[in-house]
Amino acid sequence: MSLWYDETFEGHTRLGLRVESTLFSGKSAYQTVEVVDTVGFGRVLVIDGIFMTSEYDEFLYHEMLVHPAMTTAPSIERVLVIGGGDGGTVREVLRHPEVKQCVMIEIDELVVEASKAYLPGIGTAWEDPRLDLRFIDGIEYVKASADEKYDVILLDGTDPVGPGAVLFDESFYRGCKRMLVEDGVMALQSESPLLMMDVFVETQHKLRSLFSEVHPYLGPVPLYGTGTWSWTWCSATGEPLRPIRERQETIALASKAYNEDVHQAIFALPNYVRRALKL
Amino acid sequence: MSLWYDETFEGHTRLGLRVESTLFSGKSAYQTVEVVDTVGFGRVLVIDGIFMTSEYDEFLYHEMLVHPAMTTAPSIERVLVIGGGDGGTVREVLRHPEVKQCVMIEIDELVVEASKAYLPGIGTAWEDPRLDLRFIDGIEYVKASADEKYDVILLDGTDPVGPGAVLFDESFYRGCKRMLVEDGVMALQSESPLLMMDVFVETQHKLRSLFSEVHPYLGPVPLYGTGTWSWTWCSATGEPLRPIRERQETIALASKAYNEDVHQAIFALPNYVRRALKL
Repeated sequence: MSLWYDETFEGHTRLGLRVESTLFSGKSAYQTVEVVDTVGFGRVLVIDGIFMTSEYDEFLYHEMLVHPAMTTAPSIERVLVIGGGDGGTVREVLRHPEVKQCVMIEIDELVVEASKAYLPGIGTAWEDPRLDLRFIDGIEYVKASADEKYDVILLDGTDPVGPGAVLFDESFYRGCKRMLVEDGVMALQSESPLLMMDVFVETQHKLRSLFSEVHPYLGPVPLYGTGTWSWTWCSATGEPLRPIRERQETIALASKAYNEDVHQAIFALPNYVRRALKL
Repeated sequence: MSLWYDETFEGHTRLGLRVESTLFSGKSAYQTVEVVDTVGFGRVLVIDGIFMTSEYDEFLYHEMLVHPAMTTAPSIERVLVIGGGDGGTVREVLRHPEVKQCVMIEIDELVVEASKAYLPGIGTAWEDPRLDLRFIDGIEYVKASADEKYDVILLDGTDPVGPGAVLFDESFYRGCKRMLVEDGVMALQSESPLLMMDVFVETQHKLRSLFSEVHPYLGPVPLYGTGTWSWTWCSATGEPLRPIRERQETIALASKAYNEDVHQAIFALPNYVRRALKL
């Protein structure tokens, strides 16, 4: 017998996946963590009943979070990732040979343990010697570490609910900015403008109050069930449409979605998004 | 009490909408037609249990089917639409003041009747004197009408199952090509490369055997539950990235999604699509 696992958005729309088996189920101090095996999306990480990532479509999320920032930052030697316990984000970061150190801050060790055991195809870089994985609270880390400087910061938070909500606070963004080198780039997932336009717009306003260059970009993540997901590229200098060609070509060659044309295309905003942002 | 209306894709993934009421339910010689009122997507047209279009996201589908072709065809005086019984496609066509005649061929009068009565916000151009609506079989029309020439042909078929399946046949595409003026443009919806890569690729091959210029393009349609939908731009001449600027600016101004940047962006194909098409 196979069952449906449904995630309901805003109480009115649901995405259901047929589940063949539950591979893992555990409870940490922060949340309930599950890995289920589905017919359509392969193995799926579920946190507090919310689909986080799947073997089937994770590349669409991780490549889009990572490479627009990593191909445009002048230097990418030191990279900070906050969140991203499934390992997909650091995997994409560490595909860049210029990276010397990637610090990953994840509050919940259980997410990493479950991902290591049951999603080995997503987190393929756990053993990379450049990875410095620390199980601490991202908020505390940022508060205490203003002296540590990074070339790129990637925020791979869950959603603005639950333990990850603080990763959407303006004070947290300000702390991150302090840790960026002057010409550094920060990128973050910034929710769906279709399903959560209010959160999307609010996030843009918070970021604009801190960074002179704030550029949201869009792409599909089927698991998030809304057609259009958003991420945001931020910097005090520079601009997102001038990637470093050689670095970009190398990465695009072995990416599943990301390439030179896609990089330019994702920053094109449809009218309804432009209007909501008064662009 | 409110209920869930679910559409299941390939037996393994489902999109569910909370329904407040069923506004219309009828059966034609071809199919079952319903209009339901949902909490998240507004009113939704459902044919044989498949979500067709919704008040909430129909602009994403209709603008993307219509304007890439209508802004690039040298002339747009005579336009043929096959399918599209909800009226959204002809509405977008008739926003172009250069259009002198728009012939719409819809096999099922019940779809138009239900849409006129319950989706008046989608079909706003039924009374336009330039519209020539005929309730006949698109296949028969194309077979019998090789002498009628059109500047633009838009295929707004449902899915390659049910009565609309023949709209995905190579012989049908060949018939359409015969009805195009030499520098005419045809555009069609061509399914999801994520969910139905096989149909998507097969459609591209059929079109390539007939047209020298075949360019698939991608965009989100949340109601179709897969994140990425595709349409395809076809012509014997010309190319899709050179819109006629003045025509494009006029249309973009009052579009909800379509604009100059989006036009360029949608033709950027991610690597997994390029590879599937051997591009």
